[in-house]
Amino acid sequence: MHNEILKDIGEKELIRRITKFMPTNQASDDCAFIESKGENLLINTDLMIENTHFNDEIISPKDIGWKAVTTNYSDLISSGCTEFIGINIGLVLSPKTEWRWVQKLYEGFSEALNNFGGSILGGDCSRGETKMISITALGLQNKLKLRRNACKPGEVLLTTGIHGLSKLGLLIKSNQITIKDSNISKKLIDQSINAFCRPTPRHKTLKKILQSSENFIKREIGCTDSSDGFYQAIFDLSQESKCKAIIDYKKIPKNELWPKGEKWDKFYFFGGEDYELLISLPRDWANELIRMDNEITEIGYFTKGSPKVEIKNYPNKRNLDNDSYSHF
Amino acid sequence: MHNEILKDIGEKELIRRITKFMPTNQASDDCAFIESKGENLLINTDLMIENTHFNDEIISPKDIGWKAVTTNYSDLISSGCTEFIGINIGLVLSPKTEWRWVQKLYEGFSEALNNFGGSILGGDCSRGETKMISITALGLQNKLKLRRNACKPGEVLLTTGIHGLSKLGLLIKSNQITIKDSNISKKLIDQSINAFCRPTPRHKTLKKILQSSENFIKREIGCTDSSDGFYQAIFDLSQESKCKAIIDYKKIPKNELWPKGEKWDKFYFFGGEDYELLISLPRDWANELIRMDNEITEIGYFTKGSPKVEIKNYPNKRNLDNDSYSHF
Repeated sequence: MHNEILKDIGEKELIRRITKFMPTNQASDDCAFIESKGENLLINTDLMIENTHFNDEIISPKDIGWKAVTTNYSDLISSGCTEFIGINIGLVLSPKTEWRWVQKLYEGFSEALNNFGGSILGGDCSRGETKMISITALGLQNKLKLRRNACKPGEVLLTTGIHGLSKLGLLIKSNQITIKDSNISKKLIDQSINAFCRPTPRHKTLKKILQSSENFIKREIGCTDSSDGFYQAIFDLSQESKCKAIIDYKKIPKNELWPKGEKWDKFYFFGGEDYELLISLPRDWANELIRMDNEITEIGYFTKGSPKVEIKNYPNKRNLDNDSYSHF
Repeated sequence: MHNEILKDIGEKELIRRITKFMPTNQASDDCAFIESKGENLLINTDLMIENTHFNDEIISPKDIGWKAVTTNYSDLISSGCTEFIGINIGLVLSPKTEWRWVQKLYEGFSEALNNFGGSILGGDCSRGETKMISITALGLQNKLKLRRNACKPGEVLLTTGIHGLSKLGLLIKSNQITIKDSNISKKLIDQSINAFCRPTPRHKTLKKILQSSENFIKREIGCTDSSDGFYQAIFDLSQESKCKAIIDYKKIPKNELWPKGEKWDKFYFFGGEDYELLISLPRDWANELIRMDNEITEIGYFTKGSPKVEIKNYPNKRNLDNDSYSHF
């Protein structure tokens, strides 16, 4: 097939083919890991593209700047980064872009960097037809490694928080859901818009994980963030760790105002742009962590078996269709 | 001015404003420098945008891949990098892109990495309306630092090779110059197209500079690459080092087949996408380096004075107009 196009092969197959060009040890995590003499580095690149991830109607340039840094840092955190070095920025703008837009974007970058650490290291700026922000973030690997492929059968699966809010925020901001239609509360609307525009990566939770790790020998644990969605995150852990994930629908923490129904379950499971951590830990460690942080919830476990995600106690007869986002 | 647009303020002013958001010690070089406990890192980001830097008519995807890596590595080399760690790739593609195009791009990346070192570390891939490649390259800083701001009055200015070929290659490939019109030789055409599609960064020359440095105490020398053009490179050295550059037109090395005339001088001085090094060295060190490598040519010197580039012995009465490329 000499003329097959990306739309035909799909995102998953594209990534599989591209990954073949990489050394095998680098392929499974969001972050690349660089072994250095003194300190070990984590490096991560994330793209934000106009009309794919943002447009002027749904999010302000300052929020885009905040989000570009924090979502990147979320990937670093999910690999075990506690100290951020900073970011390199690749910025594509059209000559018609207002300076004010660029200024607000950089104010957003700066606000996030002031909050979490690191600085603007450098970058490149170029003319293009659509706006594009490519951020490469660098951080230091803590002694405890967090990796997608380190979940073990018998371990407990934990989440650091609730999902679905960011998707709802996007749908509200893009007028795909109106408040009247859905009978959702003002409080939930505000929380959702905030989750979409101003995500907070889980650096504080990581510090608690590191603190709790002092009582245990293990130096590598299973973890990822839920930037591609709650379900996808658990699926990725399961696939990279070569074991089955079983989650209990009844244990999944939800916002108290979150409506019931399959539509809302889909937002929760497949919405994406959540920046919680999904963590796999041995029972005793999991218990200790839950004691230390009441936002952390046990939602299931890993077991031997082919990589997949099984949902127990789902209220509908048929299971949820996988509705994950694909770029192509 | 709340609604001023980038076209009005121009690239130079945009960069000046953006740079204010960076720590002051990071602002003057292409590469960011990261001090680490064991080894010091260099990091550099370069963008290649469809319809700005490339299109399918003028360059093949394999050559784009080669060029994306090598031009990035040229920046690392110009800061003193001798060992390449690898690259993170931010890739934006439309769903209509053929897989074959992506495959050839990655073959180009791989070919360059196999030639110069380093591997694909990771990256991100997203849907967008125009193709975009954002590459962030990482390397190790050698003990000798090469910096734009390290030129000193009294030092000799050297170039590692000739300029202008890449611009001529672009003009030929984009049919802006036809062979008949300009009466240029087949050999020069081939060399120009090769310079445009397959640039070779000066890693071998850097090794000679490092070798020669063993006889001298200085551990920081003035240097940049000529990716933004021959004139711009010297101007940048002059501005960052706060001294005047004086170059002798008669000493500038040219391709033996390079035609005479102001048009051709403009291609030479302002063409851009050349990847030579411009180096500032004390007289005795410069002499030693020229003895070691006959491609290195002395073209002028730095002297006290306001930052500017003075061209001696220019054959025309009036000086060359600055014709450097601006993105906005």
